[in-house]
Amino acid sequence: MTQPDVVLVRPQMGENIGAAARAMWNFGLDRMRIVAPRDGWPNPKADAMASGAGRLLDKARLFDTTAEAVGDAAYVYATTARSRDLTKLVLTPEAAMRDAADRIAAGQRVAVLFGPERTGLENEDVARANAIVSVPVNPEFPSLNLAQCVLLLGYEWRRATGNAEAAVTDYAGTEPATQIEVEKLAEHYEDRLVEAGFFFPEAKADSMKVTLRNLWSRMPLTRADVQVLHGVLRQMVRWKERGERLDGGRPRS
Amino acid sequence: MTQPDVVLVRPQMGENIGAAARAMWNFGLDRMRIVAPRDGWPNPKADAMASGAGRLLDKARLFDTTAEAVGDAAYVYATTARSRDLTKLVLTPEAAMRDAADRIAAGQRVAVLFGPERTGLENEDVARANAIVSVPVNPEFPSLNLAQCVLLLGYEWRRATGNAEAAVTDYAGTEPATQIEVEKLAEHYEDRLVEAGFFFPEAKADSMKVTLRNLWSRMPLTRADVQVLHGVLRQMVRWKERGERLDGGRPRS
Repeated sequence: MTQPDVVLVRPQMGENIGAAARAMWNFGLDRMRIVAPRDGWPNPKADAMASGAGRLLDKARLFDTTAEAVGDAAYVYATTARSRDLTKLVLTPEAAMRDAADRIAAGQRVAVLFGPERTGLENEDVARANAIVSVPVNPEFPSLNLAQCVLLLGYEWRRATGNAEAAVTDYAGTEPATQIEVEKLAEHYEDRLVEAGFFFPEAKADSMKVTLRNLWSRMPLTRADVQVLHGVLRQMVRWKERGERLDGGRPRS
Repeated sequence: MTQPDVVLVRPQMGENIGAAARAMWNFGLDRMRIVAPRDGWPNPKADAMASGAGRLLDKARLFDTTAEAVGDAAYVYATTARSRDLTKLVLTPEAAMRDAADRIAAGQRVAVLFGPERTGLENEDVARANAIVSVPVNPEFPSLNLAQCVLLLGYEWRRATGNAEAAVTDYAGTEPATQIEVEKLAEHYEDRLVEAGFFFPEAKADSMKVTLRNLWSRMPLTRADVQVLHGVLRQMVRWKERGERLDGGRPRS
């Protein structure tokens, strides 16, 4: 009881069962249950599609009815795109998987139902669930396929079970330079540094250039910063040229 | 400038470009840019796969280089699964899309880079970005395809731009009934109510049964609740039978 049971209800195409297995395993879920698959079980097309996640199919449990598949669960979530007449708690994927994680941590067994391709879950299946999970899709184009729906729930499961949020650096109210401006800056430095013999030895030149370009992109450069850095470089070049004039006008290299 | 530009860098198969378009439109994104697609452009296989989201491909903008495709962006995110040698801010999809929403609200133009199938973005492309977006996949099986990666970023974009969180009801420290227990309770009531002639008229019987079953599932039933409800029903039946006995033992129906 360390993760939810993923219950595929009357799935039609073997390929979609395999793709769902992959989507589960992408986020560390590996407990699949299958209710009355249209084309029987095992299904070679599911195995072919699942490459890398075939183990999930090998240990998947088969049931005749949804009732049996969720019989041992204390809490059941039904994923659905269409709105239903049924009065029922509706959760986002995030809220549902946080709730699932809490329940599992408290020792409860939970299951997530996914309906057949095209039609989705029947109202009879949804009525069996304790809550509906609704993915906030574009109402003009709500056509998620089975594996995509599994993928999003798996993603939220993984988020709910402890992926720390990476911090965002703060650029504090300045106007950032555009990519073209940074690009021109990078080119300016790269060109002058080529002339100056900076990219040495030759074998390392390309990776040194990538490193330098990465350095510019990593900086939270404002437009003003870019002008300053152009000015710095121009000044260095002027300085060098002045040295050459003092030296009698002969180029040093 | 109401949403990020989705930039597909050197995509290989047309089908994947079409699937990416669908994934974008599922979450309301419709600004696609394509850098040097392997099989040229337009691509009939992309159109076939995009069904329903073909408009995105019609108005997609084509570029020769990543630099040109992100030239007008103030901030660029690079999605990547592999870790890189480059020192660069790494964000979760959620943090990245929140950041993108903030930047767009502040009038900045942002772009999200997606690399070619199999290989992903080159270090040269990543070096051009301001931040890396890393999806928290299972390290044992990190194989997201292009459309799946686009789907997850689109999902987070939509979440970042105002999908209210649905509330979770609180079951407050009691031990919930299992599905089998609720199922037996539903059956108990359904059977007795059939005998009692509750499901009338016949034409509405099935939907009345679904409604009743949904009612049970919707309740935050504890094991104790289930026993009480069984007791209630048994008592009603006893009461009816007592009435029949007083009435001379003749059944009323």
